[in-house]
Amino acid sequence: MAIVLGPNRYGKAETRLVRVTRDGDTHGLADLNVSVALSGELSATHLSGDNAGVLPTDTMKNTVYAFAREHGVASPEEFALLLGRHFVQTQPQITHARIGIESFGWERIGPHSFRRAGDFVRTAVVDVSSSGSQVVSGLRDLVVMNTTDSEFHGFPRDRYTTLPETTDRILATSVTASWRHSAGVADVEAVKDALVHAFVTTHSYSLQQTLYAMGKRVITDFPGIAEIRLALPNKHHYLVDLSRFDLENPGEVFMAGDRPYGLIEGTVTRDDAPPALVEWYL
Amino acid sequence: MAIVLGPNRYGKAETRLVRVTRDGDTHGLADLNVSVALSGELSATHLSGDNAGVLPTDTMKNTVYAFAREHGVASPEEFALLLGRHFVQTQPQITHARIGIESFGWERIGPHSFRRAGDFVRTAVVDVSSSGSQVVSGLRDLVVMNTTDSEFHGFPRDRYTTLPETTDRILATSVTASWRHSAGVADVEAVKDALVHAFVTTHSYSLQQTLYAMGKRVITDFPGIAEIRLALPNKHHYLVDLSRFDLENPGEVFMAGDRPYGLIEGTVTRDDAPPALVEWYL
Amino acid sequence: MAIVLGPNRYGKAETRLVRVTRDGDTHGLADLNVSVALSGELSATHLSGDNAGVLPTDTMKNTVYAFAREHGVASPEEFALLLGRHFVQTQPQITHARIGIESFGWERIGPHSFRRAGDFVRTAVVDVSSSGSQVVSGLRDLVVMNTTDSEFHGFPRDRYTTLPETTDRILATSVTASWRHSAGVADVEAVKDALVHAFVTTHSYSLQQTLYAMGKRVITDFPGIAEIRLALPNKHHYLVDLSRFDLENPGEVFMAGDRPYGLIEGTVTRDDAPPALVEWYL
Amino acid sequence: MAIVLGPNRYGKAETRLVRVTRDGDTHGLADLNVSVALSGELSATHLSGDNAGVLPTDTMKNTVYAFAREHGVASPEEFALLLGRHFVQTQPQITHARIGIESFGWERIGPHSFRRAGDFVRTAVVDVSSSGSQVVSGLRDLVVMNTTDSEFHGFPRDRYTTLPETTDRILATSVTASWRHSAGVADVEAVKDALVHAFVTTHSYSLQQTLYAMGKRVITDFPGIAEIRLALPNKHHYLVDLSRFDLENPGEVFMAGDRPYGLIEGTVTRDDAPPALVEWYL
Repeated sequence: MAIVLGPNRYGKAETRLVRVTRDGDTHGLADLNVSVALSGELSATHLSGDNAGVLPTDTMKNTVYAFAREHGVASPEEFALLLGRHFVQTQPQITHARIGIESFGWERIGPHSFRRAGDFVRTAVVDVSSSGSQVVSGLRDLVVMNTTDSEFHGFPRDRYTTLPETTDRILATSVTASWRHSAGVADVEAVKDALVHAFVTTHSYSLQQTLYAMGKRVITDFPGIAEIRLALPNKHHYLVDLSRFDLENPGEVFMAGDRPYGLIEGTVTRDDAPPALVEWYL
Repeated sequence: MAIVLGPNRYGKAETRLVRVTRDGDTHGLADLNVSVALSGELSATHLSGDNAGVLPTDTMKNTVYAFAREHGVASPEEFALLLGRHFVQTQPQITHARIGIESFGWERIGPHSFRRAGDFVRTAVVDVSSSGSQVVSGLRDLVVMNTTDSEFHGFPRDRYTTLPETTDRILATSVTASWRHSAGVADVEAVKDALVHAFVTTHSYSLQQTLYAMGKRVITDFPGIAEIRLALPNKHHYLVDLSRFDLENPGEVFMAGDRPYGLIEGTVTRDDAPPALVEWYL
Repeated sequence: MAIVLGPNRYGKAETRLVRVTRDGDTHGLADLNVSVALSGELSATHLSGDNAGVLPTDTMKNTVYAFAREHGVASPEEFALLLGRHFVQTQPQITHARIGIESFGWERIGPHSFRRAGDFVRTAVVDVSSSGSQVVSGLRDLVVMNTTDSEFHGFPRDRYTTLPETTDRILATSVTASWRHSAGVADVEAVKDALVHAFVTTHSYSLQQTLYAMGKRVITDFPGIAEIRLALPNKHHYLVDLSRFDLENPGEVFMAGDRPYGLIEGTVTRDDAPPALVEWYL
Repeated sequence: MAIVLGPNRYGKAETRLVRVTRDGDTHGLADLNVSVALSGELSATHLSGDNAGVLPTDTMKNTVYAFAREHGVASPEEFALLLGRHFVQTQPQITHARIGIESFGWERIGPHSFRRAGDFVRTAVVDVSSSGSQVVSGLRDLVVMNTTDSEFHGFPRDRYTTLPETTDRILATSVTASWRHSAGVADVEAVKDALVHAFVTTHSYSLQQTLYAMGKRVITDFPGIAEIRLALPNKHHYLVDLSRFDLENPGEVFMAGDRPYGLIEGTVTRDDAPPALVEWYL
């Protein structure tokens, strides 16, 4: 038996970059959180502490800032591709770069004034290797609620089942979505609108059904999106039993629960989608 | 020497209430986090575990839900007053009630569909006692940024001062504000707009100056507001030194810092404001 | 009517300092989070942006690091006093300094190796002005549980009371405590042990009773402590109703709740304690 | 082109269970956070809202509590196996169950009194399917620091490299580890001690080298562990430049940084390890 080094990577996580563009008095703003992870032939540093192939993570941070100046931030995806290609092309021992970016939205409230928009965070994960690259876009923390048009019944019951069937409940979730492209990069606001529209217009018999409707809508509307993955926590709202106080509660007073929560995860794809890189699944 | 019980209070914190109102197919939504703290003659339970005067905190939670059904939630302030008066009037040993409410905003995206607005959280703190009540409204987590029109110079320098003077920097903060009323309850969206407008239009020589301008604007525009308190963290954005890479950085590439941060706190009032209850200062 | 500036202060919050002491191969470690807030005659910067009296918060950060080198960190309280006196004595416009310190514990696991102890965070708040100083020590995040010896009954019942009386429940809390000294500075580990011992040995009829017992123990054991303030969230553990599954549950299976929670706050003092500075109450 | 449902699963996340065992006056305690995710033939609910195969997540929660009563919690791993097998065996449409458990440590401070140990969280992830099961144990939030015996030099330099080489720096990390077993389940305290010992005794030329040493130690010492995965953030401590204040800083005063941070991830295995289920990689 021998002990061996398995898969490994390293990088600089969460470099916070704010990039201002100045067009006279009118400024633009990109607010990013950039994480870099590189892999390749890195056994020397693991086995003997020989760092000849270990570009410092501090250099990755510097590169993020310098590239922001040299190339600008056209989009999180393009900026990530620039960074990923740079590391793979310039570091001979590096065969793969994963660049993850969170992008925080700001609303304009003046020529050079902005208000942080808290409604969702845009995400991008780009994998670059010598054999090609994969661009995954996404969003998280998009919280939506339907106060009716949600039912849940017809489910199996076992010894431990006490949940009553319902034909009217609150359905609320915090959407995390990521999608991979077969061509181009879809407009993230448009994808968000499609997700929201499907959530709102689906009369739901299960959150799974809503998830599939949301994914299907995106695949239908965006030919360049090959596959979308959704994670939807079921943010439970419990109808409060007010009969103890001689009060009715016709779907009006709810307790918002923290934990536990349902968690529904699924992928929707087109049957002729090109295969994903393995990194899509990690 | 004797050991004595000093000031004390107790209550139920963070009761999460979602109140749906149904007007046919069109629903409304209030999403609150309600905290109750009661004080009065409570020495028996502390000294001997005699609970004859200790209304259970579980009952406070139930009361929040029942009141939401019986009275609705016209506004956080009115709901808090209803609750506070109830406890003071019905519990003989209770002489003071403090009700704190956080109210989370949702944007309408359908007749009975909503999207969580993440741009700020509305707050209310109401104190009720036999001698009167005090209503404090507020907001938190309103994040704003000016990418120019901010300077900082003319400050004293001691042995430990290394900060260069600047005539152009980013000014960003996350606004926490609370204000007490002498008459009525001001519209919170209008107060927020006044705060934002003052932030945007003040050419700033210090965050203190901006704070005072924000407070003055609110006091000027809202005759029913007696006093406003602001806490403004200076969310530092550090200009990155790119000269090491033979690059200029004319106010374009910044590192957003987490810690440490400046913290500027101040109050703006009118000189004929009625005195505050002591709870304003706690 | 005129608009006037009310109480205000400013400073640098959350300067993260790790101070290593080296005695040959054996090292020591202090890990602090230091916040400085200064107040005094600061109207000029608020009213006109004149910063002649505004020592930069960046300088405060530098001072923290320089003082750590020049004076060492004998204890959080002493380090805070050094800082507070420095700012009041050297800045003519500053009449009051509040220094707040969090101190994170590390266990020694080698001559120069340490493991972060997560069992509680030590705190200190020191107020320094020309008229004197006040030292408040404390701790937070000390989580303790008794799985029996806790009862709750004899409480009043109103229309909204549904809680059953109980003679056996879990009592769990996360202790936040702060105490002011009349003489010297008590050993924080000893105070912690006194708090824990009182929690463990008190057969509790209410969390208020436990709170008072904890405070009384500290006041009794530490003559130099004038007053102690405790905030004890009641971390509810709900006995799960397993009768639906034809199972008994004799105090064995509980759901740990997040929100809402009871919150019990109180102060225990000695009747001959010297008066506190007003800052004790803020 | 057709739109199709891809991989999916659903379950109840973060069911908070506290299990008390009573041996007369002496109690024991297990404090778990249990997450269940089931997958199998679930297309009906996605495509048409037919829930005939969708055991409610509420039932999963109930099952956790009922099983804790019926079977006790011998260990997180055994409890997870019980749950996973139950769902796969009793739900015909379910072919795979993943049970994730966080276990929070408590120190005994009395026969039925406990203090929360904050030094690390124990984790377990168990996958059960008809073809077998896989048990992965782990821990997270174990924070360790060496104040010397860490160097970093010999790395490549490109245009963006400014990091000086160092022969003496602080090395600090928060250990996340998970390991899969080929036989039995290793004692988690013993694995933790092995990880800590390797961290302390490795004179480090890179965090990668330390990572490998930690993994190798575990593989060497525990024949039943087939493979271990480690994620080690490099919690940077920056030596403060005090020369600006005419002070030396011989490795004594550091700023603890939040972001960005290095992130080193790697796996150490034995070359005759049995293959992992695919879930090990997800």
